[in-house]
Amino acid sequence: MATEPFSGSIKDLPTPCFLVDIDKVKRNCSRMIRRYKDVGVELRPHMKTHKTIEGGDLMTGGTRKKIVVSTLAEAEFFASNGFDDIIYGKPVIESNLYRCKTLQEKIEQFHLLYDNEEAITALVRNSLENKKWSVFLEVDVGGHRTGVAWDSDKVVELAKLASQTPNVEFRGIYTHCSVSYSKTSDTEVREQAKNDTKRFLNVCERIRQAGIPVETVGLGDTPCCSVFDDSMAKLTEVHPGNYIFYDTLQFGIGSCAFDDIAVRVATRVISHKPEINQIVLDSGFVALSHDGTYCKLPNGIAVFQDHPELIMEKMSQEHGCVSVKSGQIDCSAYPIDSMLFIYPYHSCATAANHPVYYIHSGDKVLGIWKPVKGW
Amino acid sequence: MATEPFSGSIKDLPTPCFLVDIDKVKRNCSRMIRRYKDVGVELRPHMKTHKTIEGGDLMTGGTRKKIVVSTLAEAEFFASNGFDDIIYGKPVIESNLYRCKTLQEKIEQFHLLYDNEEAITALVRNSLENKKWSVFLEVDVGGHRTGVAWDSDKVVELAKLASQTPNVEFRGIYTHCSVSYSKTSDTEVREQAKNDTKRFLNVCERIRQAGIPVETVGLGDTPCCSVFDDSMAKLTEVHPGNYIFYDTLQFGIGSCAFDDIAVRVATRVISHKPEINQIVLDSGFVALSHDGTYCKLPNGIAVFQDHPELIMEKMSQEHGCVSVKSGQIDCSAYPIDSMLFIYPYHSCATAANHPVYYIHSGDKVLGIWKPVKGW
Repeated sequence: MATEPFSGSIKDLPTPCFLVDIDKVKRNCSRMIRRYKDVGVELRPHMKTHKTIEGGDLMTGGTRKKIVVSTLAEAEFFASNGFDDIIYGKPVIESNLYRCKTLQEKIEQFHLLYDNEEAITALVRNSLENKKWSVFLEVDVGGHRTGVAWDSDKVVELAKLASQTPNVEFRGIYTHCSVSYSKTSDTEVREQAKNDTKRFLNVCERIRQAGIPVETVGLGDTPCCSVFDDSMAKLTEVHPGNYIFYDTLQFGIGSCAFDDIAVRVATRVISHKPEINQIVLDSGFVALSHDGTYCKLPNGIAVFQDHPELIMEKMSQEHGCVSVKSGQIDCSAYPIDSMLFIYPYHSCATAANHPVYYIHSGDKVLGIWKPVKGW
Repeated sequence: MATEPFSGSIKDLPTPCFLVDIDKVKRNCSRMIRRYKDVGVELRPHMKTHKTIEGGDLMTGGTRKKIVVSTLAEAEFFASNGFDDIIYGKPVIESNLYRCKTLQEKIEQFHLLYDNEEAITALVRNSLENKKWSVFLEVDVGGHRTGVAWDSDKVVELAKLASQTPNVEFRGIYTHCSVSYSKTSDTEVREQAKNDTKRFLNVCERIRQAGIPVETVGLGDTPCCSVFDDSMAKLTEVHPGNYIFYDTLQFGIGSCAFDDIAVRVATRVISHKPEINQIVLDSGFVALSHDGTYCKLPNGIAVFQDHPELIMEKMSQEHGCVSVKSGQIDCSAYPIDSMLFIYPYHSCATAANHPVYYIHSGDKVLGIWKPVKGW
């Protein structure tokens, strides 16, 4: 499983470092596989959170088929390691097509997203040798990132444009949703999932009524896909990603139990500053990321395992200044060189800063995973 | 100079990517070298912003001597590439000593910071073969990160402890300052530099009065060292780091001219959303970092070159949602696939997210630099 052997205990690791609890990861992955097998919807996991072969194997149940990626660097990495049926999850632009061509030649199925005419025009200008470009129309059901607004006439127009373009194959529609990220309970998320699915299926229906076949209808984000609404059984696929690790943000949304959070940052105490009610850790914003600054969670961006009294007050590049929520800190409770464990606010952001992940079962370190970086 | 050749124009680069204007970098580096040569203070540049051999060469004027690093991974990287006289810029803990021992054997001068008794006890327990551990006492002159409070009796006690420990050599005192980061003009920064230097020299005086030689008195942060107060001529060394690149934060503080900012993120437009007054870029928080979220700069965390009307509204991992400060966005002014350039808020944070930097002079790309990552 692990790309490089490593033995020993967590307590001997250099800090800061990113810990992945393999038992929790396996549980999170199998639960999602089982859930969507049960309802007859294909699971197409997103690789952006972990960006590793090992994580990809667990998320696809070993098939190495049907994934989404967030960068072309990920697409190239997974394609070079035997993965196939890959969606590049951002609207494609012409400048990317030389890399997309190579990917189309390398694997059987490489799919692009589009949400504008310019993309189709670019595909016409850049034909493939013996293949059509495979495309999904990205739809915005309310998340207000990329994608054509679900209630706009442009969804049918753009679907028609692609389906009538000779060197392009219109495969279906894709949406990230993402409004669920503002929710704070599974009930709210389920309501949002129902709403997003309804809008998305409406888009599908309108395109089909225009006489255009829609083979794949894929919706996703980790909150909606974790909580699940029965209406989602009408989709053909879902594409959540973060669930492999989860984090305190997802716990706050209601996507998972706290015990499902599979990743932590291990850090050590390097300084005591009782005169300013502070201890200092060897983890700053590079180890943790700034994501979640000013978030409303009671512990802020860093939840300390076994130490609910601690709060991250400020971070610089390699220092984390920690205090207690109330009263005076007792430095003797956190000796110099002792290890603390932080559950990250947003595991995608934290993982993105780490060149290696340490994989463990209990306190035993089993090996490391190396994520792909860059774009 | 560049570790890998690369030719072509900036406009052909994959995006997002991190651009380094080599002419501005050279100017920033020579200006700092000249400034401190003129006043007879040694410049010990900090490597944490760029973490590259090429940047280290420019900052040391090719000597590869006298640097500070923020991680042991940096120390090992620079030591393996012929750099010497390196300070590891965080209070050392016993768990790090096995790596520090190897570094002590590899290069002539490797120095540690300490701000507590536990560190000295650990050094006693872990003697070197034929050398003493070289240490600097870290002092907190008001920045409230690590370091002993400047006005505490502990500064003299801890200096005495190190100087009386047989296998330890007390070399001097070190402070990062950092209060300057809250200032908004060079006048304010100069006042702060004067105040920090006064406190720091007071510490030095008190230690000397206790009969302990203080060979090196090193103070630093980029704002203070860029602006300079005459009193700083009494220091033996300074250790700024960010100035190699600068950024909009430093410009806002008053450390540099806008034209000194040597780095940008190149990005492309991937989606038009006129119905919600937005365009979307292929750069999200991985390409830019979240540092500066809720900052008070008029353009927020992203200043767009030649487009003062644009503002980054929100970012997800690989998407940046951009609007105009007032009125309705004219999408036709930002065609799909066109390139935009963003001056980052905090170049240390942005650079930390990029596995390669593209080095250019004017529009011509000259090569790439590869920074060291991890800890």
